[in-house]
Amino acid sequence: MKHKSFSEGIYLKTTTNIPHWLTKQASLHPNKVAIELVDGTCITFLQLKQKSEHFAKQLANLHIEKETRVAILSSNHIDMIIAIHALSYLEAMVVLLNTRLTTRELTYQLTQSNAALLLTTKSLQQEKKLAFSNQITFFRVKSMCIKDVSLANDINLDAPFTMMYTSGTTGAPKGVVHTYGNHWWSAVGSVLNLGLHADDKWLLTLPLFHVGGLSILIRSVMYGMTVFFIEEYSITAVKHALFERKVTIASLVTLMLQQLLDKNDENLLPGHVRCILLGGGSVPEPLLRKVEAYHVPLFQSYGMTETSSQIVTLSETYAREKLGSSGKPLLPANIKIHQADHNGVGEIIVKGPMVFHGYDQLPEENERAFSDGWFHTGDLGYIDDDGFLYVVDRRTDLIISGGENIYPSEIEQVLLDYPHVKDVAVVGQGDSKWGAIPVAFVVTEKEANEADLLEFARQHLASYKVPRRIVFTETLPRNAANKVMRHRLAEELNNNKNNT
Amino acid sequence: MKHKSFSEGIYLKTTTNIPHWLTKQASLHPNKVAIELVDGTCITFLQLKQKSEHFAKQLANLHIEKETRVAILSSNHIDMIIAIHALSYLEAMVVLLNTRLTTRELTYQLTQSNAALLLTTKSLQQEKKLAFSNQITFFRVKSMCIKDVSLANDINLDAPFTMMYTSGTTGAPKGVVHTYGNHWWSAVGSVLNLGLHADDKWLLTLPLFHVGGLSILIRSVMYGMTVFFIEEYSITAVKHALFERKVTIASLVTLMLQQLLDKNDENLLPGHVRCILLGGGSVPEPLLRKVEAYHVPLFQSYGMTETSSQIVTLSETYAREKLGSSGKPLLPANIKIHQADHNGVGEIIVKGPMVFHGYDQLPEENERAFSDGWFHTGDLGYIDDDGFLYVVDRRTDLIISGGENIYPSEIEQVLLDYPHVKDVAVVGQGDSKWGAIPVAFVVTEKEANEADLLEFARQHLASYKVPRRIVFTETLPRNAANKVMRHRLAEELNNNKNNT
Repeated sequence: MKHKSFSEGIYLKTTTNIPHWLTKQASLHPNKVAIELVDGTCITFLQLKQKSEHFAKQLANLHIEKETRVAILSSNHIDMIIAIHALSYLEAMVVLLNTRLTTRELTYQLTQSNAALLLTTKSLQQEKKLAFSNQITFFRVKSMCIKDVSLANDINLDAPFTMMYTSGTTGAPKGVVHTYGNHWWSAVGSVLNLGLHADDKWLLTLPLFHVGGLSILIRSVMYGMTVFFIEEYSITAVKHALFERKVTIASLVTLMLQQLLDKNDENLLPGHVRCILLGGGSVPEPLLRKVEAYHVPLFQSYGMTETSSQIVTLSETYAREKLGSSGKPLLPANIKIHQADHNGVGEIIVKGPMVFHGYDQLPEENERAFSDGWFHTGDLGYIDDDGFLYVVDRRTDLIISGGENIYPSEIEQVLLDYPHVKDVAVVGQGDSKWGAIPVAFVVTEKEANEADLLEFARQHLASYKVPRRIVFTETLPRNAANKVMRHRLAEELNNNKNNT
Repeated sequence: MKHKSFSEGIYLKTTTNIPHWLTKQASLHPNKVAIELVDGTCITFLQLKQKSEHFAKQLANLHIEKETRVAILSSNHIDMIIAIHALSYLEAMVVLLNTRLTTRELTYQLTQSNAALLLTTKSLQQEKKLAFSNQITFFRVKSMCIKDVSLANDINLDAPFTMMYTSGTTGAPKGVVHTYGNHWWSAVGSVLNLGLHADDKWLLTLPLFHVGGLSILIRSVMYGMTVFFIEEYSITAVKHALFERKVTIASLVTLMLQQLLDKNDENLLPGHVRCILLGGGSVPEPLLRKVEAYHVPLFQSYGMTETSSQIVTLSETYAREKLGSSGKPLLPANIKIHQADHNGVGEIIVKGPMVFHGYDQLPEENERAFSDGWFHTGDLGYIDDDGFLYVVDRRTDLIISGGENIYPSEIEQVLLDYPHVKDVAVVGQGDSKWGAIPVAFVVTEKEANEADLLEFARQHLASYKVPRRIVFTETLPRNAANKVMRHRLAEELNNNKNNT
């Protein structure tokens, strides 16, 4: 029997549009608090919309149009939130820059991204002294007249919204483009996992220039949910948020959780805290034991910039039974182990509508990174019989230190530029405070001085990337393909540490 | 400055795929109850997946392939749920038939839909005596061997999933095709409005062949949420579900809510009931007063088959302040009033990813129904200054009786076939039990007998569509364009009723 096709006479859509999320929340919940600050300031969804629209119309003086790329260099601040929403009203693309980067690193990203404008603060302007010509402070924009332009009513989920840089095994930072749809699906995956309560209030203290922070902001305007916004991180502020300000969900990195439990010897977390979402690096066992003792509702997760934040999450239910696992992929996501060895360990590959569509202007890199819609993370892991993911090694050599990603190759490139340095390998050494710290193994032609070499690194690298220590050595261990076996060095380092 | 386009070297997706939702829930929550029955039977997500896969492999014997159209004629029954999921594993399209329709009506829909197979029950087979050749009972299928076919791992959100018929102003039923994406977005819109709690349990007692019932089933597999499934509606069963079985959300029609509150003079609803979602027709004022007195957490809503259930919902917060309003459009949706008159009243048009893409094989009808992505509902309404929708008139002449839609023109066509009937107009008369009941105004050439005419109607129409009363009249009121002014007749009817 022949069946009529679905497309016969059916109105076919090409893209998916939804009403602008902030406009929508301002309509649905005008008086609900969108952003609550430590000092007690509360900004409702209606106010946030009005401020963002106003700022958009001020920005419009600067020739920002649809798909214009605008870089933001700012630490967490309410102005930054308003700017992000404002740029979405202009349908511009937001390039988020990490404030901890050096002038050299920032210049590279500004140039690579083709940013037409840099929005920043006075203090960062003075600190970074960027040669970039078209830069302006939030303060200056706010003093401008408004220009009467029409703002976006809708969001096209296929349109690009944000870009942030991530380094890779090759060392050169790559721009990860997130569409509105990537963010949307990430937030939907999260709500189907964690649920949504009318009184939910999500703690935002991770940097907005990382996807972990930005994704909280976007969930807020999608869910109509209050964000408790700590502009300047301190453990005191986090405790205040959890204990006094009725925060129900908090996204933390391991370092923060450690600090929280260190200073929390007497009080259990209050009952209204229903989820501590943990990203960024593995959790040391002593910390997990504390989590258990204090009944912390911990949700470990696995994700990266390319997956628009968490893509695999371990729910509280399985926290003990599946210790060390990152959990199962969120509803819209799929994971597989690629080319598993006899132990089942292989590369983790991921698929789903929250996975980004490619690095900016790097067609060859994208060709390598995707196959049949699956993104190759470069991380190693295995999936147990019950379907739980265990990450064995992050991106082969990735070092996660205090929530920041450090790519060894990027540091190696810098050190190789130093006179008489012949060979370099950077590896992570386990650290009870930071999770891991970078250590450099260096082979030189002539004797070299550790302090000079570190000083040189400091000039070219963000401080968290500067090796804590240089180990001078005769040769580096290499495999048959002449590739440095960083894991061999890491083992050596971590064994020595344990022995001393 | 020229900006590089986003698409340069970016991996472009064409469709959005997600893992099959039931397979996913069976992985995430294998032992969580998916379906709970009145008799205490509980079916977990893992069991539901296994049963559905098994049934799919039995159905595979019947040459069901991707996009094969399979009709289901069944009252609410667990077999029907399994069949719907099974057909999605085969990527077939499910045509849902209303059990209350006559043999003639069902035959029309079976033919129109190009169904390759009819799945039904023994009792409905005996009752309807359909001439359709390729029909089989659930029971027969369950006795078959399984065929080893590969089942769908993914769901393509752009693929058609279900079809159900709705009548229109022209009288001929039209097949409303829902893609997986339509259902998905409808469920996302709902979760962002109502939230999601770990202990949520949704009462399903509306027929699965209507979108109001079907959408609950789909939310269940998307949210990983338990459905309390009443196969045979009774107010006793509903009370039992709400009071004894910890149901937290219930979708009801006005008639059911009325019955619930009638028999509920002593007990308030228990605290775990956090939402009564009400669709289908306006709520009489005395009922609203009871809702207030009993503190019922009522969410009134507006929606239709074409919008995959609710698209506008009034939250509890505004229930009193905005009495009579249907609320505001859900997050992914937009509404507008088309060609408003001086009072702001015009046709309600809607847009959003939960809105269907067209009627099956009716290109001209679709041409009329859509403009620039907006679907013209045919309903009249206005939006107040705060953005709340008030529905003034459902599809000009639609009569909603006990949750069923009745289209006057469909009844009129039937009555005009009776000898000596010259002219007919059917209108709704307000009814305290059913909301509204159909009444026919008939002009005949010769004197006719009411009983004979009603008997004729009963032979051709589902019983709920049969007029409760015939009013013989000399002429029908017509406007300048010679269109019957049904509203004039309705006014007459409802005034007379109030006067007597």
